[in-house]
Amino acid sequence: MRRIDNFKSIIDQYNIIFFDAFGVIKNYKGLVPGIERTFEYLKQQNKEFYIVTNDASRSPSQLASSYHKLGLTAITHDRIVSSGMLTKEYLDLKVNDGIVAYLGTEDSAHYIESSGLHPLPVSQIDQSNIDKVNALIFLDDEGFNWCDDLNKAVNILRKRTIPVIVANTDNAYPVTIHDVSIAIGGLANMIENIVGKEFIRFGKPDSQVFMFAYDLIRDHRAVSKKEIVMVGDTLHTDILGGNKFGLDTVLVLSGNTQPIDAETRMTATGIVPTYVCDSAVIDLGGFDF
Amino acid sequence: MRRIDNFKSIIDQYNIIFFDAFGVIKNYKGLVPGIERTFEYLKQQNKEFYIVTNDASRSPSQLASSYHKLGLTAITHDRIVSSGMLTKEYLDLKVNDGIVAYLGTEDSAHYIESSGLHPLPVSQIDQSNIDKVNALIFLDDEGFNWCDDLNKAVNILRKRTIPVIVANTDNAYPVTIHDVSIAIGGLANMIENIVGKEFIRFGKPDSQVFMFAYDLIRDHRAVSKKEIVMVGDTLHTDILGGNKFGLDTVLVLSGNTQPIDAETRMTATGIVPTYVCDSAVIDLGGFDF
Amino acid sequence: MRRIDNFKSIIDQYNIIFFDAFGVIKNYKGLVPGIERTFEYLKQQNKEFYIVTNDASRSPSQLASSYHKLGLTAITHDRIVSSGMLTKEYLDLKVNDGIVAYLGTEDSAHYIESSGLHPLPVSQIDQSNIDKVNALIFLDDEGFNWCDDLNKAVNILRKRTIPVIVANTDNAYPVTIHDVSIAIGGLANMIENIVGKEFIRFGKPDSQVFMFAYDLIRDHRAVSKKEIVMVGDTLHTDILGGNKFGLDTVLVLSGNTQPIDAETRMTATGIVPTYVCDSAVIDLGGFDF
Amino acid sequence: MRRIDNFKSIIDQYNIIFFDAFGVIKNYKGLVPGIERTFEYLKQQNKEFYIVTNDASRSPSQLASSYHKLGLTAITHDRIVSSGMLTKEYLDLKVNDGIVAYLGTEDSAHYIESSGLHPLPVSQIDQSNIDKVNALIFLDDEGFNWCDDLNKAVNILRKRTIPVIVANTDNAYPVTIHDVSIAIGGLANMIENIVGKEFIRFGKPDSQVFMFAYDLIRDHRAVSKKEIVMVGDTLHTDILGGNKFGLDTVLVLSGNTQPIDAETRMTATGIVPTYVCDSAVIDLGGFDF
Repeated sequence: MRRIDNFKSIIDQYNIIFFDAFGVIKNYKGLVPGIERTFEYLKQQNKEFYIVTNDASRSPSQLASSYHKLGLTAITHDRIVSSGMLTKEYLDLKVNDGIVAYLGTEDSAHYIESSGLHPLPVSQIDQSNIDKVNALIFLDDEGFNWCDDLNKAVNILRKRTIPVIVANTDNAYPVTIHDVSIAIGGLANMIENIVGKEFIRFGKPDSQVFMFAYDLIRDHRAVSKKEIVMVGDTLHTDILGGNKFGLDTVLVLSGNTQPIDAETRMTATGIVPTYVCDSAVIDLGGFDF
Repeated sequence: MRRIDNFKSIIDQYNIIFFDAFGVIKNYKGLVPGIERTFEYLKQQNKEFYIVTNDASRSPSQLASSYHKLGLTAITHDRIVSSGMLTKEYLDLKVNDGIVAYLGTEDSAHYIESSGLHPLPVSQIDQSNIDKVNALIFLDDEGFNWCDDLNKAVNILRKRTIPVIVANTDNAYPVTIHDVSIAIGGLANMIENIVGKEFIRFGKPDSQVFMFAYDLIRDHRAVSKKEIVMVGDTLHTDILGGNKFGLDTVLVLSGNTQPIDAETRMTATGIVPTYVCDSAVIDLGGFDF
Repeated sequence: MRRIDNFKSIIDQYNIIFFDAFGVIKNYKGLVPGIERTFEYLKQQNKEFYIVTNDASRSPSQLASSYHKLGLTAITHDRIVSSGMLTKEYLDLKVNDGIVAYLGTEDSAHYIESSGLHPLPVSQIDQSNIDKVNALIFLDDEGFNWCDDLNKAVNILRKRTIPVIVANTDNAYPVTIHDVSIAIGGLANMIENIVGKEFIRFGKPDSQVFMFAYDLIRDHRAVSKKEIVMVGDTLHTDILGGNKFGLDTVLVLSGNTQPIDAETRMTATGIVPTYVCDSAVIDLGGFDF
Repeated sequence: MRRIDNFKSIIDQYNIIFFDAFGVIKNYKGLVPGIERTFEYLKQQNKEFYIVTNDASRSPSQLASSYHKLGLTAITHDRIVSSGMLTKEYLDLKVNDGIVAYLGTEDSAHYIESSGLHPLPVSQIDQSNIDKVNALIFLDDEGFNWCDDLNKAVNILRKRTIPVIVANTDNAYPVTIHDVSIAIGGLANMIENIVGKEFIRFGKPDSQVFMFAYDLIRDHRAVSKKEIVMVGDTLHTDILGGNKFGLDTVLVLSGNTQPIDAETRMTATGIVPTYVCDSAVIDLGGFDF
């Protein structure tokens, strides 16, 4: 049986911490209890941190303010790297003009708008504008009618040879202690199988999102990957992606991976973190402080 | 370039004809024009025929009466073998009691009812009855709210270890000359990937539906597979399945496979029919009669 | 925790028993100790039985005589249904003449020869005879040079659009208590992915092999699927296939599925047998007799 | 029909050119005729270039000297970015000590040795040293016995939970005008399916190899992705990967993609380059100079 490591003594060894959001900092009920102490400690110790998330449903500013409302003010918008930001970068570099059709909420369309392109929900694409559609983006599982708009997305892609971006690679996400919801990544996989085309995916475990965060650090100082540790609750996104990018990794058991399954799933998948911790919460008042 | 065979001279060589329905006998506009002549000829020549279909949306009687309304009275309910009938046989043999949850129209639930079991739409499963659910069936893409009920199906399968039947293996089906709609088989593939369990699929290309039709013949007379030819418009269901079951096969170009693509797709997939015809329509008044 | 059933009281309820071979009757060391008592009991009770196996490496006669050499004389060649026999039936019905190229031992080529066709190892296909090759069969993982002949198979399939049969769907098989060996089914999957064509697979869990055994019974008497139970050690072949064909199923823990894993694997895969037993061995001298 | 662009006028618009090797600069017969003129032109115009290749069979120095032997001296070792170099970086960052087992030639083991780790061919792993194996690397399809060593790799991975790196993601590569050979990426896919673990893949279309080349430039000067164009012959590696990384892309028709198929394959896959050219050869004496 693998031993459980102490989270505080781990982060003491690194200068920069990358955190996954869901299952690490927050869950379906709100903040993970006590997580604010972790960010106090990071501030006190002058550690740099980033939230590296597959959540493309809202802009970094909106994501940050959702933490502020919950009382966690340490996470500011410039600390958030989302797969939506990779989508914006792709559009900046590769799509010059025209309509970008999307599936998701109005909030998620922020990433398209900020590229200077014209976002239009899939539901509003018709004969009059389909020829101007230059990309289709899967942003979020909410904000559209699944039956009508998934069928419409299939038919747009049968008629137009355009790049398709999946801005969140997750298949499902927890909504209560017992239940999950199908995520936009799961819906996109279905459409990809049906139309037989190859989509572009941004988000962990793909390394481009890690590279984006890494470049934010390099913009202001030299850094080695050895200074960074990635903290996450999911083996095949956070841990696989972190490992592949060359980072040390911490699996926390406060989210997707249950304490009882952790060992079995590591052996079954071959995905092994550098450390395993109960959670990313630090007990500041404890005797080990 | 492969030559196009004459459909009439093909069926002259066989005693029994298996037809796919969609793309062969009917399409999104109604009957394939002239197809009634084919069934007149079969009657005149005393040939036996069966419709072997992945359509589990309605009972054989309802399917037959839909042909009658279009003026094709030759197709009676006892000539129809649907993947829904395999589902009913499975339930008869393997599920003794309790609730069978389903996704599909009320009509499609016929196959569950006729098994003497209690069908309940996925939308009506809750804490009070989930423990009595002994199977979940994907019957049809209509009759339910995709967002609510696909999510509910995922969560039922996370809580209950029960057999899951996909009664129609198609991923998509044509609804107009330009557009397709996602079929229940495509939705089921997504759910299977998300829950990570192995579903049971009935319908072409799986051989169990061909065996069902074959057994209907053997109930009243001895027969060899060499007497039967399978006619279909789709390489990877009708032709692959017919070939695998040991039947000679005819690809007709009146449905899913366009004349311009037929050759390329045969080479690409390695699925090769015994014959290729423009359609299953016979020109009775023509000079070749 | 699921209870372990008594194998003898199970078979008392059925008239016909289908057995998987490897992991049930024999293993890498020889016969499963005590299994001969099971066959004595079947004889004494006048139960009919068949060995339903994915082993296409040898003819039924050779397979039977391998049991005889181990001292188990009850298993005669007419009791064995192998995926190789399905391959022979396919060739009989669908390939009229020419060369059938194969990967496997000379013994495995029996199934091609008995079809009256000309078997030739893939290694002997060259410019002079490639145009006469009318099918390619994956029979066994032995009898050929993997590097040379797997590469040759890829290139034959790039040049010739012909049916490809995989006569054993297993990915791997145990060779010692600790080690497995890649089976021909695993090699065939790789080739299929590389050439992008659709192969035809015979063997459990596909229902055609169960149907073949079922038809052997129906040749001499009427039978219902309710009279038959399938006994196997592997969830995704024996149990999934048996369930799908409508049979009751017994998972035995003497082969691929370890007692410690059985529960977890049933929940994870959703494949659930009717019964679970330690092994297919009957204790004839025990007090429960 | 899509028009064919002029390669010279394309590279005139960019400061940095990334080239795929096989199918662009060389093929199974040697150099692509005339390609040396392209590199003369690049030198004359003071353009920076890198060879971005999935070839991990030899070190960059050995790869460079293979070009020199063919008369192309412009390609020096510091211009080559191979997927093997990513493997070395992974080992540097994530594997501290012990044995690294590999499949490939002795030359390919260079990437392990240069990490200061102890490379050992899979064939030399046995009971005495298996516990010291801390990673397994798929480097090249040559240099080992496929049957013995692929089976051994499977059994090592059943016993040891260690990272597995696939240093070349290609499934197959051309060896003559008519024939291909299975590449190490294809063999690795088979092993991954059999052991059910998740392997780490380096090489196009994954973005980490593009990032590696991009960082080489950034080490000596500021650069925008808009200054770079990726030139390749394969849609799903060079073009998909280049597009995803945010680069403009050129598909050349001198390798994997035939002129007759280019249009169809772009539509079928949805992978569309910025430009299409016959080859990467520049006609320096032509009137457009």
